[in-house]
Amino acid sequence: MTGLLLTVGDEILLGQIVNTNAAWLGERLAEVGVDVLRSETVRDDVDAIVTAIDRATDDGAALIVVTGGLGPTHDDVTKEAVARAFGVGVTVRPDVLTWIEDRYAARGRTMPAVGRLMAEVPDGFEPLHNPKGSAPGLWGTRDLDDGRRQIVAMMPGVPHEMKVLAEEAVLPRLAALQDAVVLSRTLLTAGKGESDLAAMIGEQVEGLPEGLTLAYLPGLGEVRLRITARGADREAAQHALDAATDAVRDGLGTLVYGEERTTLAAVVNEALRERGLRLAVAESCTGGAIASRVTEVPGASGVFQGGVIAYSNEAKTDLLGVPADLIEVEGAVSEAVALAMAAGARTRFGADIGVSTTGIAGPGGGTPEKPVGTVWLAYDDGVSTRAVCLQFTPDRATNIALSVTAVLNLVRRQLLRGA
Amino acid sequence: MTGLLLTVGDEILLGQIVNTNAAWLGERLAEVGVDVLRSETVRDDVDAIVTAIDRATDDGAALIVVTGGLGPTHDDVTKEAVARAFGVGVTVRPDVLTWIEDRYAARGRTMPAVGRLMAEVPDGFEPLHNPKGSAPGLWGTRDLDDGRRQIVAMMPGVPHEMKVLAEEAVLPRLAALQDAVVLSRTLLTAGKGESDLAAMIGEQVEGLPEGLTLAYLPGLGEVRLRITARGADREAAQHALDAATDAVRDGLGTLVYGEERTTLAAVVNEALRERGLRLAVAESCTGGAIASRVTEVPGASGVFQGGVIAYSNEAKTDLLGVPADLIEVEGAVSEAVALAMAAGARTRFGADIGVSTTGIAGPGGGTPEKPVGTVWLAYDDGVSTRAVCLQFTPDRATNIALSVTAVLNLVRRQLLRGA
Repeated sequence: MTGLLLTVGDEILLGQIVNTNAAWLGERLAEVGVDVLRSETVRDDVDAIVTAIDRATDDGAALIVVTGGLGPTHDDVTKEAVARAFGVGVTVRPDVLTWIEDRYAARGRTMPAVGRLMAEVPDGFEPLHNPKGSAPGLWGTRDLDDGRRQIVAMMPGVPHEMKVLAEEAVLPRLAALQDAVVLSRTLLTAGKGESDLAAMIGEQVEGLPEGLTLAYLPGLGEVRLRITARGADREAAQHALDAATDAVRDGLGTLVYGEERTTLAAVVNEALRERGLRLAVAESCTGGAIASRVTEVPGASGVFQGGVIAYSNEAKTDLLGVPADLIEVEGAVSEAVALAMAAGARTRFGADIGVSTTGIAGPGGGTPEKPVGTVWLAYDDGVSTRAVCLQFTPDRATNIALSVTAVLNLVRRQLLRGA
Repeated sequence: MTGLLLTVGDEILLGQIVNTNAAWLGERLAEVGVDVLRSETVRDDVDAIVTAIDRATDDGAALIVVTGGLGPTHDDVTKEAVARAFGVGVTVRPDVLTWIEDRYAARGRTMPAVGRLMAEVPDGFEPLHNPKGSAPGLWGTRDLDDGRRQIVAMMPGVPHEMKVLAEEAVLPRLAALQDAVVLSRTLLTAGKGESDLAAMIGEQVEGLPEGLTLAYLPGLGEVRLRITARGADREAAQHALDAATDAVRDGLGTLVYGEERTTLAAVVNEALRERGLRLAVAESCTGGAIASRVTEVPGASGVFQGGVIAYSNEAKTDLLGVPADLIEVEGAVSEAVALAMAAGARTRFGADIGVSTTGIAGPGGGTPEKPVGTVWLAYDDGVSTRAVCLQFTPDRATNIALSVTAVLNLVRRQLLRGA
């Protein structure tokens, strides 16, 4: 099925908001087998929306997914425009009005008069209940003159409302309409680049049967691998997907840290929780970024004991117990200091595992021997220790992000060894 | 001048990359007076690009800004498509070939054979030197049959290459072509919401002369105010812009922390540097996010002494010197503990200023007396202290982000008082 994304909103065109909805929908629609031809953003303007729908129809789009412009203010004109393009009227639907009134009532408020506007539905369209907001989604179909069938799905522009409506209503309906079943799975890896991974699983990928594809989606220190399988029915697609996933997992081993939408920090937190272990950090060049990433995960207090951000040498000595003469002899950016920091974090916080970073994030501070981007990472669990020196980039933000990923991945791999 | 953005790339449609270029360009084009009608993303496909350019022309777009598809691989077809839409050929330009060869030579490498593809320029187009990459930008114009003139500006899709080319070549040319001069300035505020700000400067805004506009761009704990002035010439526009900026600044006072593209953390770092003061942090609920934001700024080591992430009560006592009985009597989330944490950070790190956070980020841990989103912030500079209790949201990530902004703004305002 060919599809087109249509985003409605002046604020997107003016750059006040980045259109993250389009990327999210592009990825999800591909997963259910929709072939997205184009993505377009237009103003809050009836003529512009009607033109966009007419052009999508000219392009042969069997599906148009529209986001934005479903609210109650004067610039919300999406329903009016779609109704005009379809040549139908717009009517207040009593069931939708009840949804909206109930939503206000649940918050102890009375629906304002403009609430009625959100209950207007283009004739022949089906309202989709919105559990996260007042404006419902809408689903409509029409038979074109040339015999093709066209679907228009409308969702609010607010990302968390759009995502719920897409996952609960729109994507399942689209998946059910495909003549082939398309299933996909994403494997998350850290520690190697795209070309290394490709070299490791080249053979497995060469042998993938028809209808199976593998996409490498690189990020900062991480690469996601999306495996997609098409089959005549769900069982066939699932079988092909499972076989391909197993092959890729066999090839990559512990480089794969998780599947789908988890994060490396969440996987590390969970691995610590399962083992009843608590982590402490000693951060120099990462400046709190490791702790910040670990504590973003809800429930972090169960596995995270705390940390010291020791930017200065005095702090490394006073708060982490790194001997001053060690810093003087070895330098603050050294294996010995990284190990002493990790040990200090572990003991000072009474944690099971301490990790540390010390390096030159940049842009200043580099020397010929230790250029910008040189980072020592260390791990200490009281029994075994590990230290790694990495050479990253000239860019401060990149070096911090890559260091955080490398430390979390070091903890993950050490936990796997111990398991 | 009416304009249209055209993004070329399968990876954008498939959602593998979020199209941040479109937002950045939308904002910058508006600033130089381009009225962006639509933004469209198409596949790496010659026909799709040609159709998009033809439709933009039908829409009356005087400017088409194209990003992506200028590199040397087989899916880079933007130049071929634009040349076809313009009805011209494509020729290798010796001067561009020299740029590219020199760029490789500067890195001690020889240009690969595919480098020649990047030196191909549609006939009649002007190459724009790319200081950050090999593929040049391109600028072309044509007279349409109806007498209108049309500009096509092409830039690479890699964001940092696109931005340099836009700022150095494309935006200045567009600004010079406008019949009216459009100037804008962005004032950055923290601490009040959009409606509070509007109430404070309502009168000033009511009185803005013709051609002056004020846009509120809200973020997490921050609101940007974009003032735009149009004038017959640069002097008139600058005069109007200065007058409006002064009026808004007068109305908002110290709520304005900076202008244009700085950040609150950078402003705080600079204020500390000017005064020769050093900061230390004690973070509970923010889990390292304050330190992380402060140390993102290059040169942070000159003003940031370090910090303790004290998730556990033991860490608050052992590393920050918060009396255990104080935590027991007052609770970890309390004014007294927040103040003791700030004082502890200051003294333990030998810093001039200590700040702290202790609160319930969520989703767990709330009680009827202290619901999720309750956060105590404190400031201690050895002479004066300040503690604030804020009630944020049910969402963990939002609470952390709002707490960081509130702490940084607290430091900024205390420094202004002392100045």
